[in-house]
Amino acid sequence: MTITITAFERSPDGGMGLARDTRVRWALEEVGQPYEVRPVSFTAMKAPAHLALHPFGQIPTYEDGDLVLFESGAIIFHIASQFAGLLPTDANARARAITWMFAALNTVEPPILEIAIAKFQEGDKPWSKERMPLIAERVRNRLAQLSARLGDDDWLDGEFSAGDLMMVSVLLRSRPSGILNDFPRLAAYVARGEARPAYQRAFAAQLAFNTAPPLAN
Amino acid sequence: MTITITAFERSPDGGMGLARDTRVRWALEEVGQPYEVRPVSFTAMKAPAHLALHPFGQIPTYEDGDLVLFESGAIIFHIASQFAGLLPTDANARARAITWMFAALNTVEPPILEIAIAKFQEGDKPWSKERMPLIAERVRNRLAQLSARLGDDDWLDGEFSAGDLMMVSVLLRSRPSGILNDFPRLAAYVARGEARPAYQRAFAAQLAFNTAPPLAN
Repeated sequence: MTITITAFERSPDGGMGLARDTRVRWALEEVGQPYEVRPVSFTAMKAPAHLALHPFGQIPTYEDGDLVLFESGAIIFHIASQFAGLLPTDANARARAITWMFAALNTVEPPILEIAIAKFQEGDKPWSKERMPLIAERVRNRLAQLSARLGDDDWLDGEFSAGDLMMVSVLLRSRPSGILNDFPRLAAYVARGEARPAYQRAFAAQLAFNTAPPLAN
Repeated sequence: MTITITAFERSPDGGMGLARDTRVRWALEEVGQPYEVRPVSFTAMKAPAHLALHPFGQIPTYEDGDLVLFESGAIIFHIASQFAGLLPTDANARARAITWMFAALNTVEPPILEIAIAKFQEGDKPWSKERMPLIAERVRNRLAQLSARLGDDDWLDGEFSAGDLMMVSVLLRSRPSGILNDFPRLAAYVARGEARPAYQRAFAAQLAFNTAPPLAN
């Protein structure tokens, strides 16, 4: 059976790798699984056929035979459970790696995403300029705590895991704001993630996908 | 070994059950595991001893022998993995139940939590009143999609699972705003969750904990 994921027909970031399909591509590259990508337009994303796969009308989705999943966290957890390479075998270490996945998605990503929401959905509002520093401060607070925990380690808990894959992916979304680079340990942590061959393949694949000429049809 | 979780010494909601220890208590009640609760004050939460358990200085944490976990999602996933009753045995159904856990935490909870952030951290700002309907609209969009997917089913995917436990817990946080009751199917879904004996025990335990007289010391 072939694993098929969905991605934006054209990512709003133009191929910076910040859309959530990149993290799924990365996970599949880490475990050495081939996959196909089905592009979804913004119109198709809200249509019944896609909503049947993803009730919130987003990307990515994951299809493998009869199984349909959505949510990048759930997809990467599934990949990490099916194939070796992304989760430790020791039970406690495994539970801690999974903890970092949830921390990335529920504690670190929401304030980072608020920056994009404030920019793209409230950028024209009279409060936009005055409010941005408040949001940035919330992101800084989280990153300061994360940096303190990481310390001088390479990864969050021993060997590289799905927890690091998710945290690096989430932190990448704070780089356009300039905030990431104010935390040298975290910037170096993200750079270590980006240097992995699997990440490089995933990044190149999404870039090619997002910059390919439109199909004639 | 005894399972020990942490909770607010006094929850800011005064015992409404919206703090994240309640969902962990609920999971432990569903699987029939006893547990102890260690209260943490707002001061202690940001001190080194607690930060060693929870790098973001929050509750709940989970301790069982040598294992220390944080993040309610990770804790509930761990409980559901260790003990029967919260995840299906069929592999695909299990992956879908886990998907709903991630959807609750990464897609549904963030906009709901924004309402509280706007109220408690930006309630004194000049834009507070004008901005609130924008945030509420984002919550409504998500809940409309979720309600469409749930339809007339009792639970999100077959039998009650950790995915429902998490989604109900997250939706409960939208009730004070009045938004939940605008979606009758979701309000009934939440009520089904609240009617479960395990939820009732968890709710009663957190209420007793949050309304007990302070310890003399």
